[in-house]
Amino acid sequence: MTTLTQIGQNAKSAARALSVASSSQKNAALLAVADAIEARQNEIIAANKTDLQNAVRNGMSQAMQDRLALNEGRIKGMADGVRQVAALGDPVGRTLSGSTLYNGMKMTKITVPIGVIGIIFESRPNVTSDAAALCLKSGNACILRGGSDAINSNIAIAGIMRGAIESAGLPADCVSLIEDTDRATATGLMRLNEYVDCLIPRGGAGLIRSVVQNATVPVIETGVGNCHIYVEGSADADMAANIIFNAKTQRPSVCNACESLLVDENIAEEALPKIAARLAEKNVEIRGCEKTRAILKNAKEATEEDYAKEFLDYIISVKVVKNIDEALDHIAKYSTGHSESIITRDFEASQRFVRSVDSAAVYVNASTRFTDGGEFGLGAEIGISTQKLHARGPMGLNELVSYKYVVLGDGQIRE
Amino acid sequence: MTTLTQIGQNAKSAARALSVASSSQKNAALLAVADAIEARQNEIIAANKTDLQNAVRNGMSQAMQDRLALNEGRIKGMADGVRQVAALGDPVGRTLSGSTLYNGMKMTKITVPIGVIGIIFESRPNVTSDAAALCLKSGNACILRGGSDAINSNIAIAGIMRGAIESAGLPADCVSLIEDTDRATATGLMRLNEYVDCLIPRGGAGLIRSVVQNATVPVIETGVGNCHIYVEGSADADMAANIIFNAKTQRPSVCNACESLLVDENIAEEALPKIAARLAEKNVEIRGCEKTRAILKNAKEATEEDYAKEFLDYIISVKVVKNIDEALDHIAKYSTGHSESIITRDFEASQRFVRSVDSAAVYVNASTRFTDGGEFGLGAEIGISTQKLHARGPMGLNELVSYKYVVLGDGQIRE
Repeated sequence: MTTLTQIGQNAKSAARALSVASSSQKNAALLAVADAIEARQNEIIAANKTDLQNAVRNGMSQAMQDRLALNEGRIKGMADGVRQVAALGDPVGRTLSGSTLYNGMKMTKITVPIGVIGIIFESRPNVTSDAAALCLKSGNACILRGGSDAINSNIAIAGIMRGAIESAGLPADCVSLIEDTDRATATGLMRLNEYVDCLIPRGGAGLIRSVVQNATVPVIETGVGNCHIYVEGSADADMAANIIFNAKTQRPSVCNACESLLVDENIAEEALPKIAARLAEKNVEIRGCEKTRAILKNAKEATEEDYAKEFLDYIISVKVVKNIDEALDHIAKYSTGHSESIITRDFEASQRFVRSVDSAAVYVNASTRFTDGGEFGLGAEIGISTQKLHARGPMGLNELVSYKYVVLGDGQIRE
Repeated sequence: MTTLTQIGQNAKSAARALSVASSSQKNAALLAVADAIEARQNEIIAANKTDLQNAVRNGMSQAMQDRLALNEGRIKGMADGVRQVAALGDPVGRTLSGSTLYNGMKMTKITVPIGVIGIIFESRPNVTSDAAALCLKSGNACILRGGSDAINSNIAIAGIMRGAIESAGLPADCVSLIEDTDRATATGLMRLNEYVDCLIPRGGAGLIRSVVQNATVPVIETGVGNCHIYVEGSADADMAANIIFNAKTQRPSVCNACESLLVDENIAEEALPKIAARLAEKNVEIRGCEKTRAILKNAKEATEEDYAKEFLDYIISVKVVKNIDEALDHIAKYSTGHSESIITRDFEASQRFVRSVDSAAVYVNASTRFTDGGEFGLGAEIGISTQKLHARGPMGLNELVSYKYVVLGDGQIRE
């Protein structure tokens, strides 16, 4: 088995070649990958079957088995995803700015690939093709380290991608998979500073915490969302109920779903019953403060932990607040900086919320569910950053590049 | 003494207030700081005298004592530096892009402060006012952790700044100094993820390595420069000698000084003697490969370590290379990704070098000494990033901000 250091060296060397590849070379490789995934789907499905058998043996939940399973339709979806990435514009080689300096030197700031990107992810095997395609398009070699649940599927998919990339004239090592799913290989990748420029974890809160705590390679933290909606005193209560119903129940398992509700005391008696009625359609469990429970008799008691929790389930925490100040303080304390929304008809309140809430996406009168690369028009998404360095919110191709300064002179020296 | 956690909490709370401060409030605070530094210079000089006495007792080198020493002129320089930062444009609140989404929502991407920035630095006490001023202007609270050598000076300067900031109506905790210079406080700051958004180390290679290895807070790696100049076969040998003399000797102790020279074998016999003659004016020691030593009889032998070393001294490593491929391979292997330059008259070679060299600044026919926030027109500089996430090369005010997406709707939900 290839050692981590060898994988790192090979990836770094592939990244050097890939960084100077033309857009057409990269697109040809991506289309070859898409075709190969479809042409060799039987191999992928066979490997996936092994993973599913192991899953049953290990007592994996039905929901998780569903996420793991690949079939013709899903494989077609993977191939089409790769084709969509090929159709997007090349993020590399764009001039971000330029000027002539005082001494006549011409300076331009030009986008370049980041280099080698490590991606640590959990069970869904389609991440393999998604993430690798975005990295390839942006000129980055990637080192993938998936979980043990999907290892056979991942090996099949990565092997097919590598072959297709090589047949298109780029190094196979543009995409590598760490086949050993021992915990030590994840930790090793997190500390492979000599070869890896950036690490993107994709998965649950536990995985992300572990990467942040253990990595010495620069990390982009992604995807934990304790998202709040604040129903301000002047809000349209029906609009509030409609938005909250959507933000909580349209897809509760995702990071941009609403987890916590703040309701101004001036509107609580009108709005809370309307909101609760909508949420009852999907049997959402409400965990509220004392004032909430005085209005909603069926609500359970919310603990301190509930306000801090990303439920990813049909559960919502609710707190009645005195005013926007208390709402802003609560959000500052409990938010993970993902997405928050205010429902209001008051201009000043909307402005204050937008200015004061320190999250990747701040909404007025809209569902938090829109925080997504596709919805934001980025074309594709490798994750949603919840940190503030480099990129914030949905990350597409333009967030997978760095830049360099190119300075053209005719003999200039510094005085 | 205030604990690290308390310092972190206070800084985070100050950052919330500072993030919504207007440009005029921030500028008023900066001007108050500059005036206070001048008005209370006697306190600073007295504290600095204590540091200098300790330095003598600890046997600090004369060069280091010079860096540590403050006098009226240097204090005036610090105050003027703060005034210059006040005069720059506000990097916060700029609209980076905006669009109306398919469903009518108005989305804008707006610059916001990063939050709390930790700065770990070594002996020069003027970093205290420089770094704090840049952070304040960009709406960030900062936690400074300087070295023990300058601790009395730093306490005096930070105290004066805090008082002035408070007198101007902003929280004193916009600037905090960790007064305990025990190693544990540096490590503690590196792991204060709950309160610190970003860490910028300023100092030598050892400090930066330690921060990268130990921090769990996101780090911007700065300032180690093993910078190369490649004299291509078609180069003007006199221009090459002039640029190399400047890049090596104008200020050898800084990160953008040239440390290593690659000379094409087609021009080595003509160029090397000219280069060596210029470098001899400043008694630069040349450590060369066998071919170099065949031409320059006085050159010492270069070891593998010499090619990897940032000398920061009147020493340069030299290697004669067969062609641009060998030059690019050598740079890919030994460069720290700071600044590299090619001297050439050949268009294709210039293009190839610019495209292939993966460094923050890539020059054609110019000295590497220009990689600097002031020279690049950024107005001020908090450091030079040698990593590829977030910012690369000289970092000014625009590199000290993040962004958020603001989305205005009228009831939109996701279908």
